Amino acid sequence: MNAANPVNPATLNPDSRVVAIDIGGTLTKIGLVQASGTILEVEVLETHARQPFARFKDRLAAVLGRMRQQSGQQPPLAIGVGAPNASAEAGTMVTPPNFGWGPEIPLVRTIQEIWDLPVILTNDANAAALGEFRFGVARGMQHFVTLTLGTGLGSGIISHGKLLTGHNGMAGELGHLNVYPEGRQCNCGLKGCLETYASVTGIRRTISELIAERTEPSALRGVSFEQLTGAAISRAALEGDRLALEAFRITAEILGIKMADMVAHLDPEAFVISGGLSQAGDILLEPLQASMERKLFPVYRGKVKVLVSAHGSQEAVLGPAALAFAQLEAALEA
Amino acid sequence: MNAANPVNPATLNPDSRVVAIDIGGTLTKIGLVQASGTILEVEVLETHARQPFARFKDRLAAVLGRMRQQSGQQPPLAIGVGAPNASAEAGTMVTPPNFGWGPEIPLVRTIQEIWDLPVILTNDANAAALGEFRFGVARGMQHFVTLTLGTGLGSGIISHGKLLTGHNGMAGELGHLNVYPEGRQCNCGLKGCLETYASVTGIRRTISELIAERTEPSALRGVSFEQLTGAAISRAALEGDRLALEAFRITAEILGIKMADMVAHLDPEAFVISGGLSQAGDILLEPLQASMERKLFPVYRGKVKVLVSAHGSQEAVLGPAALAFAQLEAALEA
Repeated sequence: MNAANPVNPATLNPDSRVVAIDIGGTLTKIGLVQASGTILEVEVLETHARQPFARFKDRLAAVLGRMRQQSGQQPPLAIGVGAPNASAEAGTMVTPPNFGWGPEIPLVRTIQEIWDLPVILTNDANAAALGEFRFGVARGMQHFVTLTLGTGLGSGIISHGKLLTGHNGMAGELGHLNVYPEGRQCNCGLKGCLETYASVTGIRRTISELIAERTEPSALRGVSFEQLTGAAISRAALEGDRLALEAFRITAEILGIKMADMVAHLDPEAFVISGGLSQAGDILLEPLQASMERKLFPVYRGKVKVLVSAHGSQEAVLGPAALAFAQLEAALEA
Repeated sequence: MNAANPVNPATLNPDSRVVAIDIGGTLTKIGLVQASGTILEVEVLETHARQPFARFKDRLAAVLGRMRQQSGQQPPLAIGVGAPNASAEAGTMVTPPNFGWGPEIPLVRTIQEIWDLPVILTNDANAAALGEFRFGVARGMQHFVTLTLGTGLGSGIISHGKLLTGHNGMAGELGHLNVYPEGRQCNCGLKGCLETYASVTGIRRTISELIAERTEPSALRGVSFEQLTGAAISRAALEGDRLALEAFRITAEILGIKMADMVAHLDPEAFVISGGLSQAGDILLEPLQASMERKLFPVYRGKVKVLVSAHGSQEAVLGPAALAFAQLEAALEA
């Protein structure tokens, strides 16, 4: 974690607050969050990730400037930031996919120029894991794994009560576990990565495959690949569309097997599932838990919970807020 | 880790010593080891795992009694024990495969009755990881994975400089990662587990499969499955036997893919390979590293070392010795 300014609060109480910024490819959420987990306010910006970074900076500065003016008696103590492909050590985003901001974006320095507070950065998936640990359904769990099933598959690992970061700070890229050595082409250059099957994009590809292979009628045959959303597939499944249901079954089967592998590594207490695909509810979760249980090494059976995140899209700021509070606490203990 | 007696040395120096016991299905090694890593003596017993535990206890007591008599001015400070299926919390071995000692063997209590020292127990694979961390090729590495390719596939994970134990103390069962959902029957009840391919037993099964599928001549066609040892397969491969070489290629291919998955979880600095199959040297290691690299997510490429353990079979006591020293240090720090 990066903190160019010393993080040095006199004390923390439930009313202590931080600024939390969640940068996504489409939307950026900027919030003011209390140590209790209460979100005092959230502002949502369109990221416009394909436009120059300088424009994003100007719009971000406008929001942060207004927040600073209004902070009054209770100024925030730090700024936590979650962003795709963020390097905590360097304080930068490194060639994030789908962004036109350049190869290395100096996020920490930029934000500090706007508001001279300690700025702590980590990648969005790790921030989400910290958010679940401090404020979410995994509160207090010492060992769990978050899986965000969105455009890709993001993951964060909490082990022994801490973010597992690894030798290069790059642990927990579970979207790139290998399902089939010669499977679907992934954006990362490999073939058969888990996120090409178990994500919103993955289930869309599965639908296309099923349309090619099968003959039964389906509402999804009338929708182009580009227009096929996770919500449309979920809706079709809820209405009993056999193709959509089969796509969920296949997705759950594949992800469940890899979750059993994750358990054999990490022995977690729980998985916390979030992202667009998790909105399908039991249509995904029931076959997912069943597939995982079938492939669990016997000592783990019946011991691993599969939970759905209670954090909605607006609450994405809880991840970077948790990051900032963890850093503040570490500074207090030191 | 279990220490029924308080571990409370006044100080530790390079000459401080512990008793280290490595219990295997065939042999049990009992050693006296200095904090410097010097093994002062090792005694090897046949375990006779199918005979009653009481007999093992008597023979163990004879060795420990003699050691105690001879310890003189420099008595050992603790006893570290590594054993299959050991539960560190309970201080017992729980239904170890291939043992006829009963469902739960009170190892810590038994050893303490023989010699009233702090007794610390963990499973053999975790002890091996601690041995590499303190005394072996992974000395000082904060993140690495040990893979012992013997009768089965044993594994231990060091993450952030500590043994990764997980929620139930059962993390790191990497021999039971799933390779093929409907693959080879494993002793654990599952199908397609990694150890049914990547172990001495696994490569013997691969040889049998190749004998069935192919027609080229091979010295191994004259050997029964029961007589087919890892050493015989290695020897044949070194002599250019095409069937044996193909078996190593297949083993390396499968294990390399799963090692890439381990990296995507843990981002380790290195793997440390040991056990019978590692004696084949580059015949295994070169295709293994190549297979792993091909399947690594790009950010990890070229960063993960594949090392062979320098610990021979006699040095198996270094694992439980490292366990005991780690516990002594923790007690000193507390």
